[in-house]
Amino acid sequence: MINVAVLGYGTVGSGVVEVLESNKELIAKRVGDEVNVKYILDLRDFPGDPYESKVVHDVNLIMEDPEVSIVCETMGGAGAAYKFSKEALSRSKSVCTSNKELVSLHGPELLNIAKDNNCSYLFEASVGGGIPIIRPIVEALTAERLDAVMGILNGTTNFILTKMDKEGADFDTTLKEAQRLGYAEANPEADIEGHDARRKIAILSSLMTGKHVKDEKVYTEGITRITAADFKFAHSFNATIKLLGMAKRAGKNEAEAMVSPFVIGNEHPLATVNDVFNAVFVTGNMLGDAMFYGKGAGKLPTASAVCSDVIECAKNLGKNLSCDWSDEEVKLLDVSDVERSFMVRFDAAAVNEIKNAFGDNISDVTLDNEMAVLTAPMKESDFNAKCEALKDAVHNRIRVL
Amino acid sequence: MINVAVLGYGTVGSGVVEVLESNKELIAKRVGDEVNVKYILDLRDFPGDPYESKVVHDVNLIMEDPEVSIVCETMGGAGAAYKFSKEALSRSKSVCTSNKELVSLHGPELLNIAKDNNCSYLFEASVGGGIPIIRPIVEALTAERLDAVMGILNGTTNFILTKMDKEGADFDTTLKEAQRLGYAEANPEADIEGHDARRKIAILSSLMTGKHVKDEKVYTEGITRITAADFKFAHSFNATIKLLGMAKRAGKNEAEAMVSPFVIGNEHPLATVNDVFNAVFVTGNMLGDAMFYGKGAGKLPTASAVCSDVIECAKNLGKNLSCDWSDEEVKLLDVSDVERSFMVRFDAAAVNEIKNAFGDNISDVTLDNEMAVLTAPMKESDFNAKCEALKDAVHNRIRVL
Repeated sequence: MINVAVLGYGTVGSGVVEVLESNKELIAKRVGDEVNVKYILDLRDFPGDPYESKVVHDVNLIMEDPEVSIVCETMGGAGAAYKFSKEALSRSKSVCTSNKELVSLHGPELLNIAKDNNCSYLFEASVGGGIPIIRPIVEALTAERLDAVMGILNGTTNFILTKMDKEGADFDTTLKEAQRLGYAEANPEADIEGHDARRKIAILSSLMTGKHVKDEKVYTEGITRITAADFKFAHSFNATIKLLGMAKRAGKNEAEAMVSPFVIGNEHPLATVNDVFNAVFVTGNMLGDAMFYGKGAGKLPTASAVCSDVIECAKNLGKNLSCDWSDEEVKLLDVSDVERSFMVRFDAAAVNEIKNAFGDNISDVTLDNEMAVLTAPMKESDFNAKCEALKDAVHNRIRVL
Repeated sequence: MINVAVLGYGTVGSGVVEVLESNKELIAKRVGDEVNVKYILDLRDFPGDPYESKVVHDVNLIMEDPEVSIVCETMGGAGAAYKFSKEALSRSKSVCTSNKELVSLHGPELLNIAKDNNCSYLFEASVGGGIPIIRPIVEALTAERLDAVMGILNGTTNFILTKMDKEGADFDTTLKEAQRLGYAEANPEADIEGHDARRKIAILSSLMTGKHVKDEKVYTEGITRITAADFKFAHSFNATIKLLGMAKRAGKNEAEAMVSPFVIGNEHPLATVNDVFNAVFVTGNMLGDAMFYGKGAGKLPTASAVCSDVIECAKNLGKNLSCDWSDEEVKLLDVSDVERSFMVRFDAAAVNEIKNAFGDNISDVTLDNEMAVLTAPMKESDFNAKCEALKDAVHNRIRVL
């Protein structure tokens, strides 16, 4: 019997217990041994819960029990979760987590502690909920040099953008509806300002480069400035708007990494990823493009990903499952040095100045005295200078994929 | 140094050598040891080829060399490839293959020989070319009970159907163009009649059930009966037509498995998988839906998948990487017992009889004196009886997803 402790009995933690119990038989078959939840750590009691008797409040009970070989860290945050993860790993207990904040901040350190103690630190659930992404990148695409990774990494913002796209609604109304439906939190900042997606792209771009892309250094722009009019003009160019996390290899020790809304052609596979679904698009030097799609959040999908890590650890007790992510920091290119196109929504009266500045790929519609142009590719700093010169004529600009 | 032999120096085999050489440094880093191609087995000589000196004609050189620990079987077919795979495995050499025919026919037997000899039989490249599908199913979704697997598994037919969809062309013209462009073979039967997709769905449904779904028992219908008119009516229902391989769990030891064209709503993620791209859609009992998308064929993508298996074997020498696929045969449901909807293209003069038989979800267009109806769900045998009674009024029928 292999004993597991679950740290944090919230949404994901209780989901982990549910998946391990619901699929107990098939998991035992796949591991070749029974996987048993021995402890659930939480500050609260859970009277009446079927697993009430497993709930403990003292983490030392778990750390000092040599029978516990795997710990699921489903607490979140980078405080106690960080301390407990370090301690578990240093005692050769493997840790499986859904905690993207902790992974993006301290991934290399925790991976190293795991290596030194012949156990593993696995984090499939930290990106893309239940979609297998981390393991395909680390294992299945292991013969590849990954050159780019990008994706729709946040379900809340994708739900909002999809509704704006399909219904022509504005941002504020749609956000309120998302909150009413429980898809957005009362304080939606982490989602709509792009912080959640930023942590995930930091993890993915670290795995792409094998080095550390620091979360806080990733340029990040949320979706609060996107309007119903932007969608109408995007449609006129056969495109839509998505919040993307993206990273590209650029030279030996450099990369591009950002979170931003992008205008994206309807033919691109990411354009059809709607509602709360997530997708990650990877480009390998041999494979070309591949995409992974599914529910990026939710109790059971996320818990299932944690449990797939538990099974992997259970099959490899006493062994370190390694992953190429050193603490050497990757130099990120300045966003303003990167060349790309933009969709600019502007005052229709300024159409001639706009054509002079950005060319004549102008929308075939005029709406409320506004038009839009798709610019030729140019350095973002040059683009910004041109916008500056055009002053109030420019109403909004969105990067184009 | 870990030595590899490549059996068959055709498209995939030469790709394997190219991937192992191009990405040599990163592969060595990931494995922790150099991976070296020691032999290439082929009947031909390759004068001037950079790896000419590695080419051998006698398989015994490879089998009897204790330094060779991994064999890539990229020969195809179920004759010599079967014999060589068995011999390599029984000598504790792991085998990595792209050979879907051999895997679908003899997977359980070869997996067993590998198990008995502490080596592995891996076949990531046998389905979906470079798209990681097998490993996500076997490993990343390992906490899941998979309930359904379906996908666009053949690039040639998807290229043809996409062109028919976008350009309104008929089947024969499009097939000829695909042949001219090299996307279809001179003898296109294996693709257009669905045999290639059938082998792949047999493998996927075996992995879904953990038992053996026999290739030759999977009901298979190709795309030769699909016309430009079918696409026009599918469009009028906001849908398109795709050739799908699909399998569903049905009771403890039963499953549904088939290859057939399906009418599929434009909102379904598989509807936007176009041209030579493939995608596999899986449904897990905890995860819900997830999809894997990418290039389903091609020299380097397929070779990259073989090489990811080589790396996995290299990291686990002396160990069996197991996979839950026994030789117990799965009972497949008779297609005519399954309930589903159909799109029926019919003689517009018979619209009243059609409504009586199939309801009034009729296309809002009439083209060349034809209309179409989407039927309510019904058992396929009942549907067939109704069509029989309607005689010549029914011009074509396509299953609806």
